[in-house]
Amino acid sequence: MKLVIGDKNYSSWSMRPWVLMKHFGIPFEEVQVWLAEPDTRESILKHSPTGKVPCLITDEGASVWESVAIMETLAERFAQVPMWPRDAAARAHARSICAEMHAGFGELRTNMWMNIHASFPGKGATPGALADIARIDALWRNCLDTYGGPFLFGEFGIADAMYAPVAMRFNTWQPALSEPAAAYARRLTDAPAVQAWIADAMRETHPIGYYEACE
Amino acid sequence: MKLVIGDKNYSSWSMRPWVLMKHFGIPFEEVQVWLAEPDTRESILKHSPTGKVPCLITDEGASVWESVAIMETLAERFAQVPMWPRDAAARAHARSICAEMHAGFGELRTNMWMNIHASFPGKGATPGALADIARIDALWRNCLDTYGGPFLFGEFGIADAMYAPVAMRFNTWQPALSEPAAAYARRLTDAPAVQAWIADAMRETHPIGYYEACE
Repeated sequence: MKLVIGDKNYSSWSMRPWVLMKHFGIPFEEVQVWLAEPDTRESILKHSPTGKVPCLITDEGASVWESVAIMETLAERFAQVPMWPRDAAARAHARSICAEMHAGFGELRTNMWMNIHASFPGKGATPGALADIARIDALWRNCLDTYGGPFLFGEFGIADAMYAPVAMRFNTWQPALSEPAAAYARRLTDAPAVQAWIADAMRETHPIGYYEACE
Repeated sequence: MKLVIGDKNYSSWSMRPWVLMKHFGIPFEEVQVWLAEPDTRESILKHSPTGKVPCLITDEGASVWESVAIMETLAERFAQVPMWPRDAAARAHARSICAEMHAGFGELRTNMWMNIHASFPGKGATPGALADIARIDALWRNCLDTYGGPFLFGEFGIADAMYAPVAMRFNTWQPALSEPAAAYARRLTDAPAVQAWIADAMRETHPIGYYEACE
């Protein structure tokens, strides 16, 4: 399989399936396309009909795009790997919060973009971003309370991979969080697959101007 | 099971799981909450932690929210029902376009909202909405060409339910479509489960002012 991704420093969507596959030791070839270049869209369109990353190319050559579709496809193809919780009710819960991340939190995404090597403490805290953060804090705490941690549904899985870029944003922008949410963000940051992504991101030398400027 | 929905005339998200369950004859109790009322959010929060519809309440009393999570949960619980395509590659393709709908087409959704009883031909055609429509037209044609119709992946399934509200928007706003896309929108409109939703919507007498005004 191949996974088409963007800059590791900036591409929050690319991070999700990459971290999941690394965590579970699923072999894949990485195809990286630099974002915000004149030929970026054209390069991605060779792999994905939406012109966006990430995109998974299966061994049969089929394109699978959109994070949640890639996650579901991987979970189905590697059914012996505990990507989703084993319990049906927990799995439905995990799917709900993953879909909520997939379609939501637009204010957070706009105002506190992912830029792993940057530090913008206290910036970007618009009312909309803070409302998104309050919801994320609450849903994380609910999962940790219900399933006992250390990750959202016990062991590391798809839901944690979906929220890993949020932990990166929290590291950069440092909004106020409840203690359990802050501790979970630290555990997520310290997960080996997440550390591997961060290390690659820190080695990148491809700055994108509008993600580096913060008033 | 219970399905919590909003106004049938306006709530495009509610339409998706309702139409899917009706089509496949899955019994459920409908809980309807009128949108845009002072107590709407509070009423929905009794069922769903996001305060948004739709929300599925399982027989065990668990809440499942977000369309794609509800669809996956139903497909898993009724594994003998062909909600997803049987072929793995087609299923990955279906999941990709469902996730694309779930998270995307914001310009179409903003400028050509669902209002089943209304007719606003030629309105709302912003460049962004037209770009979304061009992408939808292309992805529909690709599916119809690849799998042979009459629905996106052969017989009616989750992908058709996900795009049913788009057909409703096209009926109201009447943007230009390719002939195959227009014919598919008509087939989708004529599907019995979709007709049942439309009939209920036409009987509703709960106008929401800002969805009725169109300059």
